[in-house]
Amino acid sequence: MADFSDTIAVCPGTYDPVTEGHLDIIRRATCLFSRVVVGVAAVSPRKDTLFSAPERVTFLRGSLGETIEVDVFDTLLVDFARKWDARALVKGLRAISDFEYEFQMAQLNRKLASDIETVYLMASPEYSFLSSSGVKEIARFGGNVNDLVPPEVARRLAELFQ
Amino acid sequence: MADFSDTIAVCPGTYDPVTEGHLDIIRRATCLFSRVVVGVAAVSPRKDTLFSAPERVTFLRGSLGETIEVDVFDTLLVDFARKWDARALVKGLRAISDFEYEFQMAQLNRKLASDIETVYLMASPEYSFLSSSGVKEIARFGGNVNDLVPPEVARRLAELFQ
Amino acid sequence: MADFSDTIAVCPGTYDPVTEGHLDIIRRATCLFSRVVVGVAAVSPRKDTLFSAPERVTFLRGSLGETIEVDVFDTLLVDFARKWDARALVKGLRAISDFEYEFQMAQLNRKLASDIETVYLMASPEYSFLSSSGVKEIARFGGNVNDLVPPEVARRLAELFQ
Amino acid sequence: MADFSDTIAVCPGTYDPVTEGHLDIIRRATCLFSRVVVGVAAVSPRKDTLFSAPERVTFLRGSLGETIEVDVFDTLLVDFARKWDARALVKGLRAISDFEYEFQMAQLNRKLASDIETVYLMASPEYSFLSSSGVKEIARFGGNVNDLVPPEVARRLAELFQ
Amino acid sequence: MADFSDTIAVCPGTYDPVTEGHLDIIRRATCLFSRVVVGVAAVSPRKDTLFSAPERVTFLRGSLGETIEVDVFDTLLVDFARKWDARALVKGLRAISDFEYEFQMAQLNRKLASDIETVYLMASPEYSFLSSSGVKEIARFGGNVNDLVPPEVARRLAELFQ
Amino acid sequence: MADFSDTIAVCPGTYDPVTEGHLDIIRRATCLFSRVVVGVAAVSPRKDTLFSAPERVTFLRGSLGETIEVDVFDTLLVDFARKWDARALVKGLRAISDFEYEFQMAQLNRKLASDIETVYLMASPEYSFLSSSGVKEIARFGGNVNDLVPPEVARRLAELFQ
Repeated sequence: MADFSDTIAVCPGTYDPVTEGHLDIIRRATCLFSRVVVGVAAVSPRKDTLFSAPERVTFLRGSLGETIEVDVFDTLLVDFARKWDARALVKGLRAISDFEYEFQMAQLNRKLASDIETVYLMASPEYSFLSSSGVKEIARFGGNVNDLVPPEVARRLAELFQ
Repeated sequence: MADFSDTIAVCPGTYDPVTEGHLDIIRRATCLFSRVVVGVAAVSPRKDTLFSAPERVTFLRGSLGETIEVDVFDTLLVDFARKWDARALVKGLRAISDFEYEFQMAQLNRKLASDIETVYLMASPEYSFLSSSGVKEIARFGGNVNDLVPPEVARRLAELFQ
Repeated sequence: MADFSDTIAVCPGTYDPVTEGHLDIIRRATCLFSRVVVGVAAVSPRKDTLFSAPERVTFLRGSLGETIEVDVFDTLLVDFARKWDARALVKGLRAISDFEYEFQMAQLNRKLASDIETVYLMASPEYSFLSSSGVKEIARFGGNVNDLVPPEVARRLAELFQ
Repeated sequence: MADFSDTIAVCPGTYDPVTEGHLDIIRRATCLFSRVVVGVAAVSPRKDTLFSAPERVTFLRGSLGETIEVDVFDTLLVDFARKWDARALVKGLRAISDFEYEFQMAQLNRKLASDIETVYLMASPEYSFLSSSGVKEIARFGGNVNDLVPPEVARRLAELFQ
Repeated sequence: MADFSDTIAVCPGTYDPVTEGHLDIIRRATCLFSRVVVGVAAVSPRKDTLFSAPERVTFLRGSLGETIEVDVFDTLLVDFARKWDARALVKGLRAISDFEYEFQMAQLNRKLASDIETVYLMASPEYSFLSSSGVKEIARFGGNVNDLVPPEVARRLAELFQ
Repeated sequence: MADFSDTIAVCPGTYDPVTEGHLDIIRRATCLFSRVVVGVAAVSPRKDTLFSAPERVTFLRGSLGETIEVDVFDTLLVDFARKWDARALVKGLRAISDFEYEFQMAQLNRKLASDIETVYLMASPEYSFLSSSGVKEIARFGGNVNDLVPPEVARRLAELFQ
């Protein structure tokens, strides 16, 4: 077998904004792989982002500490993974949320780069209902999102929608 | 971060019998983790097995070579994982096949052992329809299962159902 | 136990426009709860509406009669429910349509207001395929929607798309 | 409208054995309906039960207190509901677990008794992975089920499988 | 193109017993294909049947008239299809009921016989909740199944369970 | 029975652009029905198209040869089917992708035209992850789509996004 002492994993996403559910997946990934890089998609394939890419990166860095890299990408995800020598992509599955989209992207990514594997972790039950868009919808109407996102994100959302 | 130079993963299953789909998942797991142990459940929680546990182990060993351990367990899966110092369980997801059962077992296992993570790999498309029970059903009626299972398994199935 | 002689339920939706499927759920809700309030979301979280909020209210009032309140909201749904002292939100489930979205919103709403419960009724089979967007798509091409929506709605759709 | 000061709801199940997830649904039902009756199916349509019906009733009564009725039925569920003058059946939905079976039974029951409505509550996230069969599987191998079932049930399971 | 004036389709199933939902699918198949053969699986892969194969055939013949063949098979389904020169298998999909099993069997059958295509019809809404096992469960408790199965089947079920 | 020597089927879609998965379904349809017409929706109900309708038709004609008609429609699908005297609509199902949307449209179409049947073929495993939008997303970032679409489409995508 090859030397696996340095399997690198990428946790990709739009993180618009990062939620406690995202952080849970990223932290669990660090228990499995020797190094984890959070990849922030500069643009969302399906809709405009509320926060700029640098803002989304700042939220992640503020929540994750210095041992986890955070990097923006505006390329194919597999090209981003190769840039970091990553052999694994790590995604969370919330029940079957996004399952269809993830399933298709996993197979497409293997077609594009058969040496990179996508691995899935089941969302923790307490975050299984949590999404960035749900958070934004609540914040838009002045609801309390303190348990759902890091404090800095909650503060910015309150500023934006007050 | 801890030293991850030896993350061990368990690929659990009943393997009654092992299929090419199982082998695909196990081989992909070996590209992610430094050591992979195949855990063979002695009994199936839901039905009687066609093959004895030793036979199922023999099929796996014959297909996998010597670098991958194969071991039987008749305990809680998390206790088996601990015996091997494994931090990860690896399972395949075929579309939403078994998804419900897997989702529940993943959460239960985290409840029982929060330090052990279950990770999922999407089944390769060419094996996404493949299950041990489908193979047995075909073999029972004399159908050709040569592309679906290792040669030794195909031979034994032919003997059993001829 | 508390005095439950006046459990109030809210049937929330965009109702753009109301369909026979919506009316079926609302009427079934009136058989379970002592008072039902139809809550019309002023704006749709995911897309522009075809009809203005007052028009959508008019369609609902015309179809439901005077015993059922119809009210617009432009707040968090749980705040709307509290305004009406409602203890239940009632939604229809068409197979797994919208199930993901509903599941997440139900959990988020419980997080925001643990005293308000979302209850689901299975859509009647004859309406299980019916959605406001399907109706609009058919009407856009001049198709017959007479069995799918109240007469007043069918008339307005014909005017709009003729 | 009719007088709804006494809408009665039945929470049916096999309860073999009752879990914390069942209790959560039953308690939430008591916040919606003026009276709740727990209906224990004498036999399971799909498999043998581990506990006798009287034992299953005892577990429920011990956990629920005296204000909630517990009653065994060996008839059609709708006939049991009618016996108690119940207008609602209340079931929990864990993601799409049992969804298929529930969907079919709901429609069949409406066909058999159009005056009785089945309403669904989403399982609380912390119980969304919990099932009687999962509990039994863990207990069978000596796992700890203390957080998953009432104490009396945990004690009996330990006796059975030690 | 080949001469398609005689595309033959097989409607396979256990039909234990035939329901109005099965008859709906079979009749719709006769509008698409020049000849339809109903294939009755002698044994069910997953459970014992309530009715013998000859009884199940008799129910089908009594409901379908003489222009539709009914034949028992105890072989691989694709071998049965070949015996009848059928190019298509026709199955009903009730929401996602049985979808998993069907998806796997479709792919396995194409692997075994790439010249035979499985086509799916969506169950009519009014039968989307209907299954042989649901019917048997209702009949077992004396419920009325007259709208769900042909009269002869209803009569036999009443005899069996009275 | 009627004369079925000329059952005509329509394969409808937006085909923006056609993929190998679409071509697989169309070709399999030609093995079942005596004549197949590919119906190209002029506009997509849910989003803007990347390619104009004439371009999408050109891609299809270039890939399919002369025996299969390709025609644009800007009407209800059932009206398009009637124009061609088609008795069947043929769609592919990729796992449960689009299943919800397809299920609703199938039932709506039967409501609008009960004489026209929608039949589904399961996507071949190797194309089960393939969608026009996935292809466009890959092409947008310069990824290789040669195995996923016909050569002419790959060339045009490269031109557009280089």
